Amino acid sequence: MNKSINLAVLGLGTVGTGVVSLLKDNTNELARRSGHIINITHVGTRRHRDDIDSNIKQSADLLAIAEADDVDIVIEVIGGTDVAKDVIMHAIRHKKHVVTANKALLAKHGNEIFALAEEYGVQVRYEAAVAGGIPIIKIIREALAANKIDWLAGIINGTGNFIMTEMQTKNRKFGDVLAEAQALGYAEADPTFDVEGIDAAHKLSLLASIAFGIPIQFDKVYCEGITKVSLQDVVYAKELGYSIKHLGFAIRRENGFELRVHPTLIPDSTLLANVNGVKNAVMVDAHPLGQSLYYGDGAGAGATASAVMADVMDLIYVITAATPSDVPHLAFVPEELSDTRILSSDEMTSGYYLRLTVKDELGVLADTTRILSDNGINIDAILQRDAHKSGLVPIIILTFPVLEKQMNEAIKQIERLNAVTEPVVRIRLESLEE
Amino acid sequence: MNKSINLAVLGLGTVGTGVVSLLKDNTNELARRSGHIINITHVGTRRHRDDIDSNIKQSADLLAIAEADDVDIVIEVIGGTDVAKDVIMHAIRHKKHVVTANKALLAKHGNEIFALAEEYGVQVRYEAAVAGGIPIIKIIREALAANKIDWLAGIINGTGNFIMTEMQTKNRKFGDVLAEAQALGYAEADPTFDVEGIDAAHKLSLLASIAFGIPIQFDKVYCEGITKVSLQDVVYAKELGYSIKHLGFAIRRENGFELRVHPTLIPDSTLLANVNGVKNAVMVDAHPLGQSLYYGDGAGAGATASAVMADVMDLIYVITAATPSDVPHLAFVPEELSDTRILSSDEMTSGYYLRLTVKDELGVLADTTRILSDNGINIDAILQRDAHKSGLVPIIILTFPVLEKQMNEAIKQIERLNAVTEPVVRIRLESLEE
Repeated sequence: MNKSINLAVLGLGTVGTGVVSLLKDNTNELARRSGHIINITHVGTRRHRDDIDSNIKQSADLLAIAEADDVDIVIEVIGGTDVAKDVIMHAIRHKKHVVTANKALLAKHGNEIFALAEEYGVQVRYEAAVAGGIPIIKIIREALAANKIDWLAGIINGTGNFIMTEMQTKNRKFGDVLAEAQALGYAEADPTFDVEGIDAAHKLSLLASIAFGIPIQFDKVYCEGITKVSLQDVVYAKELGYSIKHLGFAIRRENGFELRVHPTLIPDSTLLANVNGVKNAVMVDAHPLGQSLYYGDGAGAGATASAVMADVMDLIYVITAATPSDVPHLAFVPEELSDTRILSSDEMTSGYYLRLTVKDELGVLADTTRILSDNGINIDAILQRDAHKSGLVPIIILTFPVLEKQMNEAIKQIERLNAVTEPVVRIRLESLEE
Repeated sequence: MNKSINLAVLGLGTVGTGVVSLLKDNTNELARRSGHIINITHVGTRRHRDDIDSNIKQSADLLAIAEADDVDIVIEVIGGTDVAKDVIMHAIRHKKHVVTANKALLAKHGNEIFALAEEYGVQVRYEAAVAGGIPIIKIIREALAANKIDWLAGIINGTGNFIMTEMQTKNRKFGDVLAEAQALGYAEADPTFDVEGIDAAHKLSLLASIAFGIPIQFDKVYCEGITKVSLQDVVYAKELGYSIKHLGFAIRRENGFELRVHPTLIPDSTLLANVNGVKNAVMVDAHPLGQSLYYGDGAGAGATASAVMADVMDLIYVITAATPSDVPHLAFVPEELSDTRILSSDEMTSGYYLRLTVKDELGVLADTTRILSDNGINIDAILQRDAHKSGLVPIIILTFPVLEKQMNEAIKQIERLNAVTEPVVRIRLESLEE
């Protein structure tokens, strides 16, 4: 054992407590793998905690901890974007390496934080920020480093996937499942970040950056949540052999990159369609590797602590080298980050599930297919059901991929038909083929 | 761009040619990610190849290439265990880093090779040796480094999985599918390594070493291939809700480690049961992470080249650091490798699928269940079919996990029953639960 590595854990919520437990549970494995002794010297906590070992210093003064001499690595797990940012910037300026699980912070301020870290010659690691225990940051930054990544698609919000799974497998309604998720602690009292797709968009902006070598551009992610997915669409999709999942996509196109987060129909036969409950998974399509998929727990104390400590283990190799040399923060060397533009939603391409509600009139299907055809849209499947008592009939249409602009125009024309009584429901569809 | 990194590619078969192509296709991405220029300066090939750039030196003298001044990293993709070993040892003695895809070599001589590399202060990387394009070595060595790994289970032979998938989904017989696999190039003319489980056992011995911190012990892996899996067992398993897959298991037990490779019934609802064709996947159960799964192409030029070049990209960070510091070869520091023993097959625990062929006599089921019960074996399910024209009846029994020694004893007693006319067919069964 050459050296003691000293950690400060800032924040003793679920994740911080998980890190403390992990160090206690796996002391032996950590020492056997790293060849060093890893200690927590400080924890940052607002109120004194009696369950923390007495040789660990406790304090609410996070800035003081972040610059303490007996700290090599600062672990930021307080969350939020204000104090967390100040503490991380302070730690960097005091030449401390940083590990954070804070996706909201990095999605917003990551470019600035990484630039400061490069200036001061330290590393900011963030494996836990995306997909919890799935080592997707390391995989894309390092394991797939020789590939040109064409696209990635991920179930990267566990709460959303839990809700979609329950709707799909038990025919339950959105509101009911959300209430249960809140009772189970899967969803926050204010579920906006999860159900509106914002959390997934934070993570997608990080994945896209390291996959393509572009700055983090959260504000350019097209973001749609799951609040508007109705049970009847889930059921119709199932009849057609599809699952509706909330997915994040980062796609390389000829003219730019598509970054989008939204409910999506995917074929039941794909592995992603079989990722259920609070689990996360990310599929990557790369050249020359082909398709690969990574699956695991997206949240929770254990998974997140595992990711945080994997970053710590990596940093030990950086710390113990006389001249640190490491993977660039955003996978590509900073001066090589590309300014290739992010496409607007009009310019994005995908297949579509459309649900029309029509008066049971002859000719409406013919009119609809003509409008689609006139707008260059090819139909993959049509499902027509019996009329409701009201006399209204649902028509379900699956299309092949099309530019969103064309679809917008077609839908505008379809909604002008007299027989079409309600706005057209549309959900994107992806085959996930190579 | 700080530096040129010079590679020698020894062997221009499928993988070597894949590496050369990758460097040409992804020059720009490689430079953008690494910040350096990566060149192939030498290729080792028996006959001159006109399709190789003229600025790359070609030679059949592998030892001379392995020590050449303009080589930083030697990539060994010739295969086999004789010449490959000599070349790698020679390269190490000349202080070259090595990347190899050679699982057979490492399974046999890995301990010796890694010890020499440590003596000379160089790295031998082997991501491509296990599960092709799936970065499972990096994941276990680095991403899961803070976990205590309880078990792993993997589909780590693509040929075997292709054969099992075809049997399962198309009710085809082993021999027919093998012939097709050979015609498609998925299986070698001599398919022994694939169908007898040896290739999977090579890979499992490497995975077990880095998961548990034990030396590579290929000779202690219990190894059973797929040649004896009959179509009727595949069909009965399906009726009971199970798929038969050829899996490798490394399991931590109280009294040692189980290392085994064999056909296995696993529930259809698991992700591993849905890994089809030549794809590979590895599931890991670790504390505190929980279960995670990694899926992708297990072989082929693209996947293997991707893994080889990921190792090269990692080594660039080692080469460009003034004082290299890196992850230990076998994930744990050498002096921490444990001598915990590997359990004999008698001491292993698993559930079982048993198929008895019996004369249609009253009392035989009662006798059988009594024998199982007397040997402490609990029954999970029984499936009894109508008698064949011959008057013989198959009885299928699924058991809960039991020590193999007890099962051996029970089977011996069952086979002594007069009504039991043929040897009992047995296939292990794993629920893959946490």
